[in-house]
Amino acid sequence: MQVATSMDMLLESRHFFSDVDPYKLGVKTLAVNLSDLAAMGATPLGCLLGLALPSFDEPWIKAFAEGFYSLCDQYACPLIGGDTTRSQQGIALSVTVFGAVNPAHAMRRSAARVGYDIWVSGQLGAADIACSMMLGQLPMDAGLLAATRDALELPVPRLALGRMLAPHVHAAIDVSDGLIQDLGHILKASACGAELKLPLLPVAPALKGLSQQRQTQAALAGGDLYELCWTAPTAAREAILKTGQMLGIPVTRIGSIHATPGLVVRDANGLALTDLPVGFDHFRT
Amino acid sequence: MQVATSMDMLLESRHFFSDVDPYKLGVKTLAVNLSDLAAMGATPLGCLLGLALPSFDEPWIKAFAEGFYSLCDQYACPLIGGDTTRSQQGIALSVTVFGAVNPAHAMRRSAARVGYDIWVSGQLGAADIACSMMLGQLPMDAGLLAATRDALELPVPRLALGRMLAPHVHAAIDVSDGLIQDLGHILKASACGAELKLPLLPVAPALKGLSQQRQTQAALAGGDLYELCWTAPTAAREAILKTGQMLGIPVTRIGSIHATPGLVVRDANGLALTDLPVGFDHFRT
Repeated sequence: MQVATSMDMLLESRHFFSDVDPYKLGVKTLAVNLSDLAAMGATPLGCLLGLALPSFDEPWIKAFAEGFYSLCDQYACPLIGGDTTRSQQGIALSVTVFGAVNPAHAMRRSAARVGYDIWVSGQLGAADIACSMMLGQLPMDAGLLAATRDALELPVPRLALGRMLAPHVHAAIDVSDGLIQDLGHILKASACGAELKLPLLPVAPALKGLSQQRQTQAALAGGDLYELCWTAPTAAREAILKTGQMLGIPVTRIGSIHATPGLVVRDANGLALTDLPVGFDHFRT
Repeated sequence: MQVATSMDMLLESRHFFSDVDPYKLGVKTLAVNLSDLAAMGATPLGCLLGLALPSFDEPWIKAFAEGFYSLCDQYACPLIGGDTTRSQQGIALSVTVFGAVNPAHAMRRSAARVGYDIWVSGQLGAADIACSMMLGQLPMDAGLLAATRDALELPVPRLALGRMLAPHVHAAIDVSDGLIQDLGHILKASACGAELKLPLLPVAPALKGLSQQRQTQAALAGGDLYELCWTAPTAAREAILKTGQMLGIPVTRIGSIHATPGLVVRDANGLALTDLPVGFDHFRT
């Protein structure tokens, strides 16, 4: 057994809205970290929580803790330590998670090979659309928000999927910064390129009323998405489909690894998209 | 071998000044976390760094990284992962450290027993005085600042001391929130009380020009101090003194553990201080 670890910070106004439901924030804070363990095929062992708050708001803290602990319980990931402090302004959260990995099945970003399939779990784009509406970047549509908001606020870490894929899959990542950007990390670490087929992308059905362009952007570049993306040899297709069926999680082949560096996305006519949307950049203003 | 872990957050305007030298901040960010490992008698294995910055200031980041990495090298504690993100305002840092502990020698807060000596390493109060001057709470004195500033900005984690004490010592803590408050954690966890002798406290010589009251306050309640405080049976006195000599670190017996709950500090005449200064509270305004 090896120990895998990961750390994520969540900041008010950057990663969550100031008026977010604290219970949901507690859930999400641990969920996004567990998602990193999922991408390593790891089984959670425990976590640390750093909590910087501008004031001691007891009901807020109680609700946050209830959400956080509910996920600790659900995924057997006890809180084993951390730090609390007062911030001058805004809430800052930091979580470190530990997980157990079978070293024989470790998934690494550097393990993609030419000819491998590229897969993604679940559906794409819903969190991005919910966030864009809440930021006023898209016209508010109450029905659409209701259908997409949980994807943003209550992401589900794909722990069982990651663990069951690990024996068959070599390179995996969670697409929290958007599919293009996070797949890019695999391509860079594996020194290869990729082609994706736009019609194959499992865009969330709730987005059907939006323009094709907005759907494409959400699916390719939308962040805050805690699905897994992985590469695997074609021989693993059956095992992967069976795993998805067993867990009731959609698993979709969306393209393949190529020798030519860079990422090409082809439309239904086989034409390469010329203007790929840019993935999430924390330092873009 | 067991793995010990600890997390500390450092926030701009709360834990460090906005104009702090970024190299020194890099050093301190890792040092305060290594200090927690020292209090567990642990040998560093690696660390994670979470870095939230309001803008991408390359020279600042370069200097910070140089300071951080210099301590990684010095204490063989490689940076193995982390997170970078943009903050809306102010710098937020989060570090998680991992260390190896010999479970036979683990030091725990709950292991103090009646009759044990209470010890502290190094000298007390310098960081508090430097910080108070920089905050304008004490008149600025350039000579005094020069003599105390390194204690605040470049703390030295007592890793070798912690490791060498571990076979002889049962309960240890670093006094980063002040001696009274952190010793209080040991007393609470061990369900006992303590008496300290004020004349025995190793107050930093640089403080001699200050009033007796200000020195006492700095020594008992001054935070940002990365010395160790520990309790040990009287039979361990010789081994502890030898360890201090070998490492060139002052180790001082300052009191003992009693059955009566609470902390009593006695002056040179044996009288109990009636107004103990309050330790650092992150949520006090």
